[in-house]
Amino acid sequence: MQADRSPARAARGEPLAVLAAGGRSPIEVAQAAQAAGRDVMIVGLEGEADEGIAAFPHAFVKWGQIGRIESIVRAHGARDIVMIGTVSVRPDFRAVAVDLGTLRYLPKLIRAMVGGDDKVLANFSRYIEGRGFRLVGVAEVAPGMVPPSGPVIGQAPEGTTADDARLAYAAALAIGRLDAGQSAVVVNGRVASLEAAEGTDAMLERVAVLRDRGRMKWAGRAGVVAKCAKPQQDLRLDMPAIGPVTVEKAAAAGLAGIVIQAGGVMTVDRTALAAAAERSGMFVFAADGNF
Amino acid sequence: MQADRSPARAARGEPLAVLAAGGRSPIEVAQAAQAAGRDVMIVGLEGEADEGIAAFPHAFVKWGQIGRIESIVRAHGARDIVMIGTVSVRPDFRAVAVDLGTLRYLPKLIRAMVGGDDKVLANFSRYIEGRGFRLVGVAEVAPGMVPPSGPVIGQAPEGTTADDARLAYAAALAIGRLDAGQSAVVVNGRVASLEAAEGTDAMLERVAVLRDRGRMKWAGRAGVVAKCAKPQQDLRLDMPAIGPVTVEKAAAAGLAGIVIQAGGVMTVDRTALAAAAERSGMFVFAADGNF
Repeated sequence: MQADRSPARAARGEPLAVLAAGGRSPIEVAQAAQAAGRDVMIVGLEGEADEGIAAFPHAFVKWGQIGRIESIVRAHGARDIVMIGTVSVRPDFRAVAVDLGTLRYLPKLIRAMVGGDDKVLANFSRYIEGRGFRLVGVAEVAPGMVPPSGPVIGQAPEGTTADDARLAYAAALAIGRLDAGQSAVVVNGRVASLEAAEGTDAMLERVAVLRDRGRMKWAGRAGVVAKCAKPQQDLRLDMPAIGPVTVEKAAAAGLAGIVIQAGGVMTVDRTALAAAAERSGMFVFAADGNF
Repeated sequence: MQADRSPARAARGEPLAVLAAGGRSPIEVAQAAQAAGRDVMIVGLEGEADEGIAAFPHAFVKWGQIGRIESIVRAHGARDIVMIGTVSVRPDFRAVAVDLGTLRYLPKLIRAMVGGDDKVLANFSRYIEGRGFRLVGVAEVAPGMVPPSGPVIGQAPEGTTADDARLAYAAALAIGRLDAGQSAVVVNGRVASLEAAEGTDAMLERVAVLRDRGRMKWAGRAGVVAKCAKPQQDLRLDMPAIGPVTVEKAAAAGLAGIVIQAGGVMTVDRTALAAAAERSGMFVFAADGNF
């Protein structure tokens, strides 16, 4: 019998704290962790976390209540923390609930907020780990949400669509290196849209507008949106995601499919995502660097 | 006395054809060329060219009338052609007026339209030069429209604004390498917006929306929009431009200033551009790679 050294197995059964921002992904992660035998406590961000977290042991915190988060997680006996979910608005620091734990951290936090997302999260991560916790990623806690390379829904892209997929993938990586955004759309060899602070959904809506206004023309479904993690992104902190809405926006833009970075992007609500893709005849493909 | 080998001097007095798309830039170029003693004929694209071209010897052509363009230019006795102006809509080939010159060229043209802008123009350029003409750039015909490195309006950016300017410049070059777009906005170290098929003005409007909706926050004027030529772009064919509207959109977005690539981006309607910048307290700076 071999010793099992994988962190996922090592942590099995250990209590887990889920720091939950918005959307269904925190709930999916909590379910997966429970199914793996872990004792889960969800700490939901007020105004962001889905009310569905009430089905689990949970507590709510406000932006900036870092001291309170720490107490809740310690009381639960958890050393492992997974951070997950969407944030609709960056906090306005004039409105942040400042507790003692936060006060100590505030100057660093404000400095961090001046930079890109990566800097904010990296700073938070260092703080958490400095306090003796272990930040774990979705890939470890809920590996079923993170597709490996290969078709996820439908067939792998071919021909012109595969060319578009490769260029969109390269473009998404290039803008990730700028800490600008994670996704890019290419249609028939032309870069239609690049994501920065507006986010993936708004970027896809723009493609629909370009097409509606005749700024770009194509018949039927063509083109690909690619989504990749930023090369410098810590996937334990902030893993990119696609969900049913991503598919719907890509469908409304007239695209043929979605390419995500294998192991670097998670799917949220896979059942609804698959249904939406199949309704529109679209593919979802997870790619590594060579495809 | 030294021999003057500069192409600008060598071409002085030679007839010049201006292929004019939209906006005031063709007129500015024609004025500059006349002032330098050249005999100018403007060939305006119907539906795009400004009616102000009527103040010069001129003719109108439709999209795709390449044979007709060639006849007009030859009748004028011009070997030098400058192509300039904005195009609001890519032609729909079902609506293109096909003449004999175009018919010969159509398969190549259609192939070219499938790719990025660069491919379309490079293909057209090869055709023109293959017919014995010389494509000349704005920098040669109207050098006063193309700022060399240094402040164009106001002071050079400093401190955080200079940092934003450098990052925006690098981002604009990076997306140019993808043949995606020419401009990028950075505010307080964060990439706010990247241009692709929507164009610079729409990209700037997006920054105003991000700010209005609280997706990005800053006080007063901050941040920079940078505009650069694509590294592979032939500046004789399609030189990027800024004008008064660029300044107004950047002002509405709350930006502190504009950085353009020295020698790679022209200013259109410099007087109105300067007035708009001064009204908003914004700078315009032309930068080379090291600033």
